Amino acid sequence: MALKTPEQYEESLRRLKLKVYLMGEQVKNPVDHPIIRPSFNSVKMTYALAYDPQHEDLLTATSHLTGQKINRFCHLHQNSTDLIKKVKMQRLLGQKTAACFQRCVGMDAINAVDSVTFEMDKKLGTQYHDKFLQFLRKMQSEDWTVDGAMTDPKGDRNLPPSKQADPDLYAHVVEKRKDGIVVCGAKAHQTGAINSHWILVMPTISMTKEDSDYALSFAAPADADGISYIYGRQSCDTRKLEGGDIDVGNHQFGGHEALMVFDHLFVPWENVFMCGEYEFSGLLVERFAGYHRQSYGGCKVGVGDVLIGAAALAADYNGAAKASHVKDKLIEMMHLNETLYACGIACSAEGYPTASGTYLINLLLANVCKQNVTRFPYEIARLAEDIAGGLMVTMPSEKDLRHPEIGKVVKKYLQGVAGVPTEHRCRIMRLIENITLGTAAVGYRTESMHGAGSPQAQRIMIARQGNLEQKKKLAKEIAGIKD
Amino acid sequence: MALKTPEQYEESLRRLKLKVYLMGEQVKNPVDHPIIRPSFNSVKMTYALAYDPQHEDLLTATSHLTGQKINRFCHLHQNSTDLIKKVKMQRLLGQKTAACFQRCVGMDAINAVDSVTFEMDKKLGTQYHDKFLQFLRKMQSEDWTVDGAMTDPKGDRNLPPSKQADPDLYAHVVEKRKDGIVVCGAKAHQTGAINSHWILVMPTISMTKEDSDYALSFAAPADADGISYIYGRQSCDTRKLEGGDIDVGNHQFGGHEALMVFDHLFVPWENVFMCGEYEFSGLLVERFAGYHRQSYGGCKVGVGDVLIGAAALAADYNGAAKASHVKDKLIEMMHLNETLYACGIACSAEGYPTASGTYLINLLLANVCKQNVTRFPYEIARLAEDIAGGLMVTMPSEKDLRHPEIGKVVKKYLQGVAGVPTEHRCRIMRLIENITLGTAAVGYRTESMHGAGSPQAQRIMIARQGNLEQKKKLAKEIAGIKD
Amino acid sequence: MALKTPEQYEESLRRLKLKVYLMGEQVKNPVDHPIIRPSFNSVKMTYALAYDPQHEDLLTATSHLTGQKINRFCHLHQNSTDLIKKVKMQRLLGQKTAACFQRCVGMDAINAVDSVTFEMDKKLGTQYHDKFLQFLRKMQSEDWTVDGAMTDPKGDRNLPPSKQADPDLYAHVVEKRKDGIVVCGAKAHQTGAINSHWILVMPTISMTKEDSDYALSFAAPADADGISYIYGRQSCDTRKLEGGDIDVGNHQFGGHEALMVFDHLFVPWENVFMCGEYEFSGLLVERFAGYHRQSYGGCKVGVGDVLIGAAALAADYNGAAKASHVKDKLIEMMHLNETLYACGIACSAEGYPTASGTYLINLLLANVCKQNVTRFPYEIARLAEDIAGGLMVTMPSEKDLRHPEIGKVVKKYLQGVAGVPTEHRCRIMRLIENITLGTAAVGYRTESMHGAGSPQAQRIMIARQGNLEQKKKLAKEIAGIKD
Amino acid sequence: MALKTPEQYEESLRRLKLKVYLMGEQVKNPVDHPIIRPSFNSVKMTYALAYDPQHEDLLTATSHLTGQKINRFCHLHQNSTDLIKKVKMQRLLGQKTAACFQRCVGMDAINAVDSVTFEMDKKLGTQYHDKFLQFLRKMQSEDWTVDGAMTDPKGDRNLPPSKQADPDLYAHVVEKRKDGIVVCGAKAHQTGAINSHWILVMPTISMTKEDSDYALSFAAPADADGISYIYGRQSCDTRKLEGGDIDVGNHQFGGHEALMVFDHLFVPWENVFMCGEYEFSGLLVERFAGYHRQSYGGCKVGVGDVLIGAAALAADYNGAAKASHVKDKLIEMMHLNETLYACGIACSAEGYPTASGTYLINLLLANVCKQNVTRFPYEIARLAEDIAGGLMVTMPSEKDLRHPEIGKVVKKYLQGVAGVPTEHRCRIMRLIENITLGTAAVGYRTESMHGAGSPQAQRIMIARQGNLEQKKKLAKEIAGIKD
Repeated sequence: MALKTPEQYEESLRRLKLKVYLMGEQVKNPVDHPIIRPSFNSVKMTYALAYDPQHEDLLTATSHLTGQKINRFCHLHQNSTDLIKKVKMQRLLGQKTAACFQRCVGMDAINAVDSVTFEMDKKLGTQYHDKFLQFLRKMQSEDWTVDGAMTDPKGDRNLPPSKQADPDLYAHVVEKRKDGIVVCGAKAHQTGAINSHWILVMPTISMTKEDSDYALSFAAPADADGISYIYGRQSCDTRKLEGGDIDVGNHQFGGHEALMVFDHLFVPWENVFMCGEYEFSGLLVERFAGYHRQSYGGCKVGVGDVLIGAAALAADYNGAAKASHVKDKLIEMMHLNETLYACGIACSAEGYPTASGTYLINLLLANVCKQNVTRFPYEIARLAEDIAGGLMVTMPSEKDLRHPEIGKVVKKYLQGVAGVPTEHRCRIMRLIENITLGTAAVGYRTESMHGAGSPQAQRIMIARQGNLEQKKKLAKEIAGIKD
Repeated sequence: MALKTPEQYEESLRRLKLKVYLMGEQVKNPVDHPIIRPSFNSVKMTYALAYDPQHEDLLTATSHLTGQKINRFCHLHQNSTDLIKKVKMQRLLGQKTAACFQRCVGMDAINAVDSVTFEMDKKLGTQYHDKFLQFLRKMQSEDWTVDGAMTDPKGDRNLPPSKQADPDLYAHVVEKRKDGIVVCGAKAHQTGAINSHWILVMPTISMTKEDSDYALSFAAPADADGISYIYGRQSCDTRKLEGGDIDVGNHQFGGHEALMVFDHLFVPWENVFMCGEYEFSGLLVERFAGYHRQSYGGCKVGVGDVLIGAAALAADYNGAAKASHVKDKLIEMMHLNETLYACGIACSAEGYPTASGTYLINLLLANVCKQNVTRFPYEIARLAEDIAGGLMVTMPSEKDLRHPEIGKVVKKYLQGVAGVPTEHRCRIMRLIENITLGTAAVGYRTESMHGAGSPQAQRIMIARQGNLEQKKKLAKEIAGIKD
Repeated sequence: MALKTPEQYEESLRRLKLKVYLMGEQVKNPVDHPIIRPSFNSVKMTYALAYDPQHEDLLTATSHLTGQKINRFCHLHQNSTDLIKKVKMQRLLGQKTAACFQRCVGMDAINAVDSVTFEMDKKLGTQYHDKFLQFLRKMQSEDWTVDGAMTDPKGDRNLPPSKQADPDLYAHVVEKRKDGIVVCGAKAHQTGAINSHWILVMPTISMTKEDSDYALSFAAPADADGISYIYGRQSCDTRKLEGGDIDVGNHQFGGHEALMVFDHLFVPWENVFMCGEYEFSGLLVERFAGYHRQSYGGCKVGVGDVLIGAAALAADYNGAAKASHVKDKLIEMMHLNETLYACGIACSAEGYPTASGTYLINLLLANVCKQNVTRFPYEIARLAEDIAGGLMVTMPSEKDLRHPEIGKVVKKYLQGVAGVPTEHRCRIMRLIENITLGTAAVGYRTESMHGAGSPQAQRIMIARQGNLEQKKKLAKEIAGIKD
Repeated sequence: MALKTPEQYEESLRRLKLKVYLMGEQVKNPVDHPIIRPSFNSVKMTYALAYDPQHEDLLTATSHLTGQKINRFCHLHQNSTDLIKKVKMQRLLGQKTAACFQRCVGMDAINAVDSVTFEMDKKLGTQYHDKFLQFLRKMQSEDWTVDGAMTDPKGDRNLPPSKQADPDLYAHVVEKRKDGIVVCGAKAHQTGAINSHWILVMPTISMTKEDSDYALSFAAPADADGISYIYGRQSCDTRKLEGGDIDVGNHQFGGHEALMVFDHLFVPWENVFMCGEYEFSGLLVERFAGYHRQSYGGCKVGVGDVLIGAAALAADYNGAAKASHVKDKLIEMMHLNETLYACGIACSAEGYPTASGTYLINLLLANVCKQNVTRFPYEIARLAEDIAGGLMVTMPSEKDLRHPEIGKVVKKYLQGVAGVPTEHRCRIMRLIENITLGTAAVGYRTESMHGAGSPQAQRIMIARQGNLEQKKKLAKEIAGIKD
């Protein structure tokens, strides 16, 4: 068995020497920084549930390389059941953390890199796939959390990598040495960068020959020399510094993003999985994005479950639960949430094996899944805000509630249904605020919009995968049109 | 092999002595009536494709009763793969007919009656399941099309069956005899009633003891004494009497609905599958409706494919195909259509065995599927009308187009992109009109709304199946609320 | 007073010698043709209500040219109150006819031609405005219905008028003579062409010098030599030939569209209002379209009122009226309908005088109005179909209902709430069918989409009128960005 | 002239002795508290623009009581032009502050109290209207900002005021004395409570005789003994304590809400405008809510203008501005925003005089306006987040940007289009974050949802005002149904 305990995960992270900057200062010990800590807790849950008998079927898998029991986040999908279990695992974790638990990017990255390096080797005679499998074995046996890093800063959206004013606006090879390569550039919006053991870098767009230096995939330890991280601000992030457990909404779990900077990072050849094979950069993007778009049909649904439950409690607590419009809004929220889940399940059930044997989702349905994710969580959030009422944003602070004098007044006037402690009501208000406006809104709203590719990226894929020409033929047949 | 050829299907239907009324007259030979004929062609396609090597995997199955190769429409789903194939078969048939092909109601009815009679027998000690299996064996070996008949006229929606002013507003037993029962009442909106060999009647709502006489399920030959049919009007139905093949939009295929009237219909006990067991009427409704709500994630998607193809051709033909807004609308149509498909696939993939061994879909997701079907086809239709342009409803008639003098003028001024015959453009306009406003709009719009239960029925099921209490627990856990 | 009575209107139309083709035959007497007749009745209502004391304030106005009391459809708007009354008059007529009453195009055309010819004369030294006022005086004193004719067939949408394979695909001058001009081409989708006294032709797009021959505006008698009309088919049009008054849904009123063909039509110079001044063709299109987009904030709202009322009755008749979801859907329908009305009122209230003194609507808001009209009637129709139930499309024919034997069965089983005659229920079903799928759906759906310009045309205008640059300045000011 | 300068406003506020609590502490000087200060600046803008020659026509009016030039916020609307100017003033202020400027509640309150006291006196013989006019004269001459206070905490939504477990959950009279009344209770969600000179209290729902003690309206100085305020937390509120001007998004302007507590507040009879006349509490609510629902058709549109501008700049800065989907999204945002404005204008243009002479908006359209406001700002925000990209929530902090070392890296990698300073891009990201997730999201999202009444409140009013019975009559007339 190759499963770290949650404690081992935490311990192993403490040993890393990450260069992390947050609000203008270097952070000594990210694991214990109150702003960063909740994101560790989320990842830690992926280790904890693997030991939970109730959930181990979802959280673990049998390595096709070693036969060992491994965490599913380290697994290559061997069949469509694996793909479906992935989605269910993600929904479960969304339910348990009400946040982005961040470890998916690595899982999606290894699955994409596997089949692409296999096909690339076959087509171009390169030797990447075996090296990748070596890396994967270590990842599985060490139960690493790996940050799959794709998105470059991109500078001017009108220009390709090689035409940017600053060549570093896309990560690229600046030197090829006998023992390895030297890389400059950055990866932006890196979810879970600071609680990972390793990073697995991929190119961000389809490239042409001119951009060969940018067609680049490799793995590196998260604390390698030459990598630093600048932590991204989230809405309401500093509430975590205030010391309470109500106003933060979710006092245990969270996610984070960071700007990951490569300053002449050296990568030995054994960890390089693409270097110049621009013809395959598009395929790698398409597959990683495909897997990651599937993911959102699980994780966001789990967070949605929590938000729906919170809205229902808000109505219980203020006495509105039996109003027909409240019931109808809760139904609508569930309907939208389950539609997302259906898309996640469907693209998995329709999965198929790639040449390497690793299963790929149905790309059309995975893009359809993500496209819906760019819409429905916003509507679910709007409905939650509707049910919650204005109190969610006008409520006095936790310090007022806990104040010996003012607290009495707050409790008196925020009392809802008799018998429900005012504090319960406050906690639910803050949880809804957290997901719709606060730190978790970053994951539930903006990441739903832009994570795994912005909406237009999915539309382009739907256009490509939708087979419009065949549909025209069907119409001609019915209409009696003979060309 | 127990598969009728399409010709055998037609021949067998001709032999039936159905009592059919249409526009105030009795129809002698429904098979050849120009208004009814297209609906036979649709059902016939379910026989034809079973002989098509390209599609036989979807259209046929192996009977779990006899091991024989049978039409999938006569099959009880043995696993979730069967459920998925059902949906794919339905999408295929929607693509081939651009209409409702009507045979699904029988398939959904046998699957529901199977598991419910099994559980009913077990619980109440009744003996229905074996009788049902006898019926099913005949249906499979004869390759019957069976009309699953559920919806009663219902009269005043505020009153239960036994409280209606006229007791016949719900079908009911009026006499129990030694050899069988006598039934009065009607089933409304019966899709495909007139091209079926047999009917399989089910109750329409959950009932209480007072309504025992209405808790009724049985099979009968479609042309039994005591059954008559009054044909329903469809938008543009009489265009089929005009003799052309353009203005009808779809000159081959269509669907129909009829009012099926039972006037002291005698049913021998061997064909009775429920009679008074009111406690199981709700379960039968729930299961049939569940299967049928799954169905719509296939058939309507197939029709949607044709409509999307037609809209794309309309843009090709008038030169607008490259406009970014047109491309974007086609993407949106595909996105919505595939979302419906995803729901159909997902509720199938998440299917599970009932006590009888027959697989049931995931009820929550099947209801979510249908709820989306009450919305998205309307939006797809709206977008098709947008791309089609006003010509769809202002175009001169086929007779004008074919007129020696006026026809020249019509052709001259309706010419779009040079090289595309004006007639092609006219045909596509009429096809889009057919699906959005004409005879096929009955299937693509209204049936999407009300078939398998009106929208509110799904919402009630979503409320029941959505497990709101568990969601509240998740929210409390995150918010730190201890009861 | 220059108001024709309804009878005088009908009489004057009978005297016209229109060349009309319908379903491959020339129509001798359009006024009495059962398919065309309802559209006369709609226009006739614009004459009748002018004599109705309750409505004359909306239906009539005082001519700014003569001081005479005239029909508002012949009036140039003198202030924003006139613009608001126009919208209210249109809502009223929509309520009274549940159809397109067709006379608006002429009203919108005269208002647009007035200010554009005035400004054109001023800028280019032409002499069109006085000629136009001469025409207008006659129109007002004779109380003419005028068909404002704008939309050309357009052929290949990628090509400008002068580059089309057939030069006639846009109407153009083929000869300029001393006494007048000769015109070839056609106008498509001409609403109300066959119940008008005169036509007022305008160009259909903004043009360049190459298209000068297509920059053309003129008036002509509807029955001038050289003009012919090919009548457009509508969904369910031939039900009007069946002789009943139920299945047609609306047995009195309707609209129509026709292809209007100019075959070397001669127009004397006195009736020519633009001929070659391509620089002003875009302005004329913009203003006519602007007025016409305002119109839809009135007329479609009136039809919507009828549809909402019909849906409410459907629920009354089947006993569902008190269900909370039904009440909520009716509220949503009213909400959407009133939003359209609000847009119609707002663009009127924000109207302003042009150089000629005639008031123009606020163009941004008029385009916003129409853009909403391309969406909300579809949703209102969808909700109406939801409330109506499947019976709307499965109901037996009027002939069945009236049949001595079958009729009893139909009445028995279609009975809803006790006490409401089944026929009432049938009538309401057919009315809803008429507006959502039948002849009136052409007006309520497709015309809402494409009339006064397809949705994309409004989006282009919103982009132009939305003043994005000023919005950027506001944002910079708030964000503290100094350029 | 009775116009305070902005400096006089500030000075007068400083003199007030408000009892304000914020995060567990009493605030000595609210005007200078960094969290509260931006909300003063917003109100101050209402004084500043009254002195701006470009805007004085909107910001000022002529008192119908004194003929003096007064701030429009102190004015009773004398005609529909006043109502329209009100909406335009609000849009302007929304554009200038990108926040809730808070002073509207007082304006809407005085207009409602005026007509209701007039009608109440007439009907019941009470003497409130003259007292109210006395108060109004002072308000106008002193140019007071008045907080219109309506919403009670409400406790259990299922129970009326008099049945609540704690009688103070609705504000009520606890003692009637010769010289005045004593009040206990609270008003929740009080927008702009802490930057007002006076408060004007109104009841929150329609009441019955049992609730007479709760039918209460009065005015009081904001710093009267017996009133205290507990400040509500907003998302990201403490960023204002960090000292920068980027991360706050909008460093000048903001809004606030507070819980306003009455602890045996004494109010002399001269300032009491309703005390026990429960029959008129519903009317007062309906009118105040109506005016306030109109308001949102102005203020939220102004904020929307800023957000649209910010989104457009975001696209300019990263090079995506020319992408057709970006342009289309900006068009959609403008379309939705102008639809809201159209509703605001329309309900004003259709205003009419009440018995007191004060103009009331069209209530149906005002409710339609607000109902759209509960939807469209959410969609506009979603589209803004789409265009902004993920950077909005992953961007390093202002302190990182300004750090001598890290700042270089941040600037290098967040550079967009060459030539645009990275800081500009950061500022726009933070502004969009502010409106969609941060302090201003409270105003732009939640207040759009719940301010002036939650969505269901508008639906109830639409049901009441929509005249469904007349619509049924219209439908019967068309369908040929005679009762």
